[in-house]
Amino acid sequence: MKPVEGRKRVVVEQLSPQVDSGRYPACRILGDTVTVTAAVFGDGHDHVAARLMYRHESERRWRFVTMVDRGNDVWSGDFLVDQLGSWQFTVQGWIDHFDTWSSDLQKRLAAQPDPHSIETVGTVQDIPLALRTGALLLEEIAARAKGPDHRQLTEIVASLRWMADQGAVFYENPITPEILELAARYPDTSLATKFERDLPLWVDRERARYSTWYELFPRSASPDPTRTGRFEDVEKLLPEIAAMGFDVVYMPPVHPIGTAYRKGPNNNVVAQDGDLGSPWAIGAAKAPGVEGGHKSIHPELGTLKTFDHLVKETRKHGMEIAMDIAFQASPDHPWVTEHPTWFKHRPDGTIQYAENPPKKYQDIYPLDFESVDWRGLWQELYAVFKFWVDRDVKIFRVDNPHTKALPFWEWCIAEVHKDHPDVLFLAEAFTRPHVMYSLAKGGFTQSYTYFTWRTTKPEIQAYFEEITKPPVTDFFQPNLWPNTPDILHEFLQKGGRPAFMQRLILAATLGANYGIYGPAYELGENKPAKPVSEEYLDSEKYEAKHWDRTAPHSIAPLITRVNQIRRENKALQSNNSLHFHNADNPNILCYSKVSGDNIILVAINLDYSQQQSGWIDLDLRELNIPHNQNFDVEDLLTGTHYTWHDRSNYVALRPEVLPAHVFRVTRLG
Amino acid sequence: MKPVEGRKRVVVEQLSPQVDSGRYPACRILGDTVTVTAAVFGDGHDHVAARLMYRHESERRWRFVTMVDRGNDVWSGDFLVDQLGSWQFTVQGWIDHFDTWSSDLQKRLAAQPDPHSIETVGTVQDIPLALRTGALLLEEIAARAKGPDHRQLTEIVASLRWMADQGAVFYENPITPEILELAARYPDTSLATKFERDLPLWVDRERARYSTWYELFPRSASPDPTRTGRFEDVEKLLPEIAAMGFDVVYMPPVHPIGTAYRKGPNNNVVAQDGDLGSPWAIGAAKAPGVEGGHKSIHPELGTLKTFDHLVKETRKHGMEIAMDIAFQASPDHPWVTEHPTWFKHRPDGTIQYAENPPKKYQDIYPLDFESVDWRGLWQELYAVFKFWVDRDVKIFRVDNPHTKALPFWEWCIAEVHKDHPDVLFLAEAFTRPHVMYSLAKGGFTQSYTYFTWRTTKPEIQAYFEEITKPPVTDFFQPNLWPNTPDILHEFLQKGGRPAFMQRLILAATLGANYGIYGPAYELGENKPAKPVSEEYLDSEKYEAKHWDRTAPHSIAPLITRVNQIRRENKALQSNNSLHFHNADNPNILCYSKVSGDNIILVAINLDYSQQQSGWIDLDLRELNIPHNQNFDVEDLLTGTHYTWHDRSNYVALRPEVLPAHVFRVTRLG
Repeated sequence: MKPVEGRKRVVVEQLSPQVDSGRYPACRILGDTVTVTAAVFGDGHDHVAARLMYRHESERRWRFVTMVDRGNDVWSGDFLVDQLGSWQFTVQGWIDHFDTWSSDLQKRLAAQPDPHSIETVGTVQDIPLALRTGALLLEEIAARAKGPDHRQLTEIVASLRWMADQGAVFYENPITPEILELAARYPDTSLATKFERDLPLWVDRERARYSTWYELFPRSASPDPTRTGRFEDVEKLLPEIAAMGFDVVYMPPVHPIGTAYRKGPNNNVVAQDGDLGSPWAIGAAKAPGVEGGHKSIHPELGTLKTFDHLVKETRKHGMEIAMDIAFQASPDHPWVTEHPTWFKHRPDGTIQYAENPPKKYQDIYPLDFESVDWRGLWQELYAVFKFWVDRDVKIFRVDNPHTKALPFWEWCIAEVHKDHPDVLFLAEAFTRPHVMYSLAKGGFTQSYTYFTWRTTKPEIQAYFEEITKPPVTDFFQPNLWPNTPDILHEFLQKGGRPAFMQRLILAATLGANYGIYGPAYELGENKPAKPVSEEYLDSEKYEAKHWDRTAPHSIAPLITRVNQIRRENKALQSNNSLHFHNADNPNILCYSKVSGDNIILVAINLDYSQQQSGWIDLDLRELNIPHNQNFDVEDLLTGTHYTWHDRSNYVALRPEVLPAHVFRVTRLG
Repeated sequence: MKPVEGRKRVVVEQLSPQVDSGRYPACRILGDTVTVTAAVFGDGHDHVAARLMYRHESERRWRFVTMVDRGNDVWSGDFLVDQLGSWQFTVQGWIDHFDTWSSDLQKRLAAQPDPHSIETVGTVQDIPLALRTGALLLEEIAARAKGPDHRQLTEIVASLRWMADQGAVFYENPITPEILELAARYPDTSLATKFERDLPLWVDRERARYSTWYELFPRSASPDPTRTGRFEDVEKLLPEIAAMGFDVVYMPPVHPIGTAYRKGPNNNVVAQDGDLGSPWAIGAAKAPGVEGGHKSIHPELGTLKTFDHLVKETRKHGMEIAMDIAFQASPDHPWVTEHPTWFKHRPDGTIQYAENPPKKYQDIYPLDFESVDWRGLWQELYAVFKFWVDRDVKIFRVDNPHTKALPFWEWCIAEVHKDHPDVLFLAEAFTRPHVMYSLAKGGFTQSYTYFTWRTTKPEIQAYFEEITKPPVTDFFQPNLWPNTPDILHEFLQKGGRPAFMQRLILAATLGANYGIYGPAYELGENKPAKPVSEEYLDSEKYEAKHWDRTAPHSIAPLITRVNQIRRENKALQSNNSLHFHNADNPNILCYSKVSGDNIILVAINLDYSQQQSGWIDLDLRELNIPHNQNFDVEDLLTGTHYTWHDRSNYVALRPEVLPAHVFRVTRLG
């Protein structure tokens, strides 16, 4: 079958950015300049022109940007994303007959016989005809123009005809760059080819790319060892957390905790009276005003009112509250009685609890995403987010999203984003790469990563080479956690204070988004539940703690300094420029990040037990430093300046003192 | 907006092969086994299953193949393409509840207390309930089965229930691999996810991938120097061409040649009486029966009848005629008067001839693909192919397809392929990579390449690394030409006979498709029109030649031997296994191709002037040879055997004698 219009001679293909052929949006940050590239070409030798078309979802009409030929048929154009939310873009290409004609005319003019020479090579005879052809083309262009442009173009048409009529022994070029530019403003796009798909783009706010998280259990926030913490106690800690340089305060679930099959300290299957249970066993029998499920506050923590107050106070400190959304129910959750079809039933009529045979989690009922009432279930889960968004919570850490249906997340996040494009979602999915990436493509803003388990130089390099380069960076924003309440890595267990310093510096400089579970982290809490376990002994998940935040071994001062460095150095606020440099010592990892003039270079000792030293071999192009020159490196952790020379430089790092240099690099002179 | 069915929990993505997101078909050859891979995964820990769906365009119903989990969520499946033409394939994935249940049951059973032990760890209490769950799941499967399978499944359901009713202190596993296999035959695909696009695949006949072309000018085929050649003379050469091992006989255009602005010998702008003109200046004033355009035969070559006879005779020798289709017109072409709108007009009313300012080609009128009558033009160009296909021509070499609208080719080739999927198209496009690839994606079976200009080791390696690997191999089949009537490369001009031997061996072993322009090639014709020109002196394009095919310096015996080696060694009949091996001498290129047990290893001296020798370092894995072993290499050009050992081996090659080894590699013992 012939196409409707067979005269569209241009091909537009290989648009970038593109996530899974446009099935999912590429992600960018408010204020970013988005560079779009495409292959645009036609048959023969005619010149092509191309423009980028883009619009925010709120706009009906496309905006246009003229694209530039980057060589080898690849064109590029930029646009600034100045609104949150959904954008679309695509590319249009067409044959530019006037530009082709102008280029041919130059060649004809160049081949004219020299009027000062007595030899007569070449010929002028075709030039008048060529000028008339150009006049015709420009006349069509003039017809599309209005006002002064129209008048100017019409005058040029007349002057081309006048030249042709006059004749000459030697013609000067009548087409200036200004004329070409003027003509290009009125392209004939009637035979333009548009790329077959309008590609989606999602624009988040800055905190999607650069954020610093502090996780704490509100029930451990009490300064009084005789009682558990409440939101009021968390409020009192806000100045201290803000002073450390964090901007997101993340709390495990704050909902009522079930009593059926409640777990005791150290995950004991039998709870004693007074045991507090796990905040992730959500939902208690509904009694008016006090208990309930995902839209209720645990009465021991406070009320909706004190929660709202905490949210407001946190903002006053330049920080935000992040809530933990864990879509599962304790047997006491109101959903269990109100919506039994949302759970799987066993042949004996009982509800299926969570299992990983032979392990059983009778205190947790998973939701059944194959429920006949999946519509009702989706709606209610969305309503949970909506409820808290309406209370001004704009960041959610989602517990185990990979155990809920992936299409649900794509719908739910889009639904929340419709009215609130500023809401951020962090996926706590420690699972296989395809599933983690699929959650990110489906709408999760940030994701936990394998960083926690990458401790050697080749492991770290390989992993970060993958997650900080396209295509991954177009949809996946890593958030690095050296510890979580679930993960106390062997490296921290064995390495103690130096290991805590190392992993903090790595997380904070490799990743623009990172977080710690504190105060366990500052205080170097590293006793495992069992020798080969990654669980904490006396885990805060099952009991309240009383931390001594003023302990002298706390690494809070280092954290404070590192977060300040992040704030003052734009290079550390994104990941795309991450580049690894060689070091001859396998225990020394060296990498840089660059943003304009701001160049940060990190050299870190990965061994917690002893000093490591060696030569690092800098890739000077990455650092924007000419060869064979001196340059200044200032260790931002200590304030010390060194003058380095060319690519080879020496470092020696003592883990127990300070395991890393975080240099700011400056050209001299 | 919620999806229609939200319970489809599986994601299917990253299907391969896929050309430009399925915009164009991937290409395969009749009899190929097509391997399809996809990422298939769901949420949580449930097991997924996947199947490949495929069908030929003539089939309404899908055929299915169970896919296999290759690890890390990647699944693969194969199907055989047993018909030419268009195919479609896609992938479907779903949660396999029975398989998930069976796997959980194994874990429960493994955790049972040992009945012979007096200790009572673990518990059996859940097993009866689990068996009942399995019985329910299997009952649903049985309901989809018929006949003996239905009966057998129903019996298993009953036996699971019986086991559950009986109770036991220790349960044996009731689920055998046979039961799993039986159950898998009746999957519940009601909640299956199908990949969003049915992907296209095009299947060509064998000659698309493996062909050996011989180009000759029929007007030079006369054995009598006093007259020009005719089709009858070409027929007389067929035994000789077949004996050399060619299977495609390609002739430049055989249509009437215009007289207006006819070119004389050596492209002289003024032709003398009796000058024959260029076969590419197609079309002469129509006089009944003798002249005309693209559907006519030049009366000096013969008639449609003698042409048909030649086509038939060629087939008798196991070869095929390839025609040259050059869509352009001499000023005398009937199109010029009958369809003036198919050409561009200048402001003075004259038709625009071909130009590349300041060069002019007044003997050629290009077609205007922006003609208002583009529909009529497309139809007529298609009709040209149709005319010759109906006369049993099934291979076309298309002249300069990149100067005709790309969308035209996609339509036209598809139109020809509708009734004749066995027609092959070779694109003579020496232009930029994007345009060449676009023609291949749009339907051209084979393409000329940059091989002609790649003469050094790094150039050859880099280029062939690109064009013999996916994604390029999914749509682009190279056809390598060491010379053409338009291109006499400097390497041949300077290198003489050794250079001709080198380039022939390279073309024939690097590319499963290759061709030569003969007898210029066998006879080592290498005088350029001018010192820096790639044009031949006294080019056959503008005059008839009388070649002495029996000249003693002819390399026809080498060509014959090389083509015989290609025929006897499957490895040389495709490109995908091409692998380069290191050699310490920069003038020695070494590479292998493998097909099953057939292993060909080529070592070639790229220097035409002197002997080169050195050590080659074999990648033994590619050759399927164990380390530290002896193996046999037989030089198929000479019949000589050598015993080689391990990876390092020595070669010395004299260009004037035989510039290459073409080894067949065999394991010993």
